[in-house]
This record gives sequence, structure tokens and C-alpha cells, in this order.
Amino acid sequence: MKPTHIEHLGVAVPKLEDAIPYFEQLLGSKCYSIEEVADQKVRTAFFKVGQTKIELLEPTSPESTIAKWLEKNPRGGVHHVAFNFEGGLQKVLDEAAANEWQLIDKQPRKGAENLNIAFLHPKSTHGILTELCEQPK
Amino acid sequence: MKPTHIEHLGVAVPKLEDAIPYFEQLLGSKCYSIEEVADQKVRTAFFKVGQTKIELLEPTSPESTIAKWLEKNPRGGVHHVAFNFEGGLQKVLDEAAANEWQLIDKQPRKGAENLNIAFLHPKSTHGILTELCEQPK
Repeated sequence: MKPTHIEHLGVAVPKLEDAIPYFEQLLGSKCYSIEEVADQKVRTAFFKVGQTKIELLEPTSPESTIAKWLEKNPRGGVHHVAFNFEGGLQKVLDEAAANEWQLIDKQPRKGAENLNIAFLHPKSTHGILTELCEQPK
Repeated sequence: MKPTHIEHLGVAVPKLEDAIPYFEQLLGSKCYSIEEVADQKVRTAFFKVGQTKIELLEPTSPESTIAKWLEKNPRGGVHHVAFNFEGGLQKVLDEAAANEWQLIDKQPRKGAENLNIAFLHPKSTHGILTELCEQPK
């Protein structure tokens, strides 16, 4: 496997509206999209810096994994790192499984911005919740 | 301010040699440099993915801030995010100070790979230890 670039950093925040002004100033560019991802129980806000997006994640329910993460990290922080692949995400997942890395998703599913995504468990990725993703065809 | 891209992700690991094979497989490229940064009490290992580097950080002393971070996060994880600037880092720091962001370094200092660097405190950056950096002239 060989990712082309870091597609995005997922950044957990208690409230989008409190964090957006800071990231707009730091990155010198406006938030270009706010999107709710119902099945993840989050609202997301997107910024761009070079090849990479910053995806802010606000929980919409106490049941959201982001809400649970924020209980341990109340200020927020980097929740996950997403790598972009080309040429077939299933092949990448099969290779990850063959390496005995722990897959949260054995097959790609749909994520924010209509990407095909799958997560690896931080237990087998040196503590980094890792998203593998590809642009939809 | 407007960074050009994410220069690197700083990733804390208990031991470089245990983590390097995983990152070589994930990123499909070899670790291209191992460097000790004595004043930070760390050994670093570098990888490239698109515009961004992954900088693994292993503490060389229990006094290292990385050692203390690993006490709370024993598996490792994303320790900091570094943004690349062009056109003068001091100007960026002055703007950060004017925004009342908490500066760990009021003036640029030297970091790994001879970059000019300065850190912002996670208290004012939504929980992300943030490095601002520029290529040396």
C-alpha cells in the first residue's frame, strides 16, 4: 500500500461554532462546508490546508464516539488521521488484514464528503485511530 | 497567516525500532532519516506522505516532554501538528500573539531538520499542540 497524501485530520471539538473562528484564522481560509453525518452522530466542518483537510467533529448525541472521546479530552484534539489511496480501497484493507492489523471496517463504507472509508483500530497502529479512504468513482 | 501545508505530524512512540516497520508498511516508503534532537531529549524518525512528513518521536530521557506524554498515552499517538509558513515566521508569531493565542516560543528557534519552529500551547488551540515552522533561508 502507498497512500498519496494525508486526506484529512479529524479534530474533535465540543462545539463547531466555538472552534471555527480559530481555525479560519490559523489556516487563513474560510470553513467551506458544514455537514451532518447522521450515522456517526456528528456535525463536521471542513477547511483546507495544502493537500489536506481539517475536519472538525462535534458530537450530536452523548452516544457519539466523539462525545466519549471528548470526556477524556475535554479541550478537543486530533481524533484520527485519514490517508488517501488510489486504485482500490478493498485491496488496501485486504493487505492490512494480511498484516494482522485490527480492522474496524472489513469493507469500505461511506463517510463524510461521500468518500469510501474504513478505519483501523489504534491498538495495531501505535495509538493513532487511522482512516483509510478513497475518492468515490 | 496562511500556512502552505501541514509540514509534519509529530507522533510519540515508546521505541522507534518497534514503530518504524509499521509506518514503512502503512506509508509504502522507507524511513529516510533518523536524527537525535538533544535539547528536546528525543530521537526522531522521518517518513514522507504527499506534502507531509510523519515524525516519530522517541524519548531519550524520562525528563523528555515526550516521556511524560507517553505516561498518559502509553500506546503512543499524535503529539503535535506542524504547519509550514513562508514569508517570515516572526510575523506569524506576532499575529498569533495579537490574537491572544498562548505562545510557548515568542521567537523562532531551531528544530529537527534545521527548521525554524515555534509552538503554540494547546490551551489556545482547541487541544492541539501546534507547531508553526518555516524552511531556513
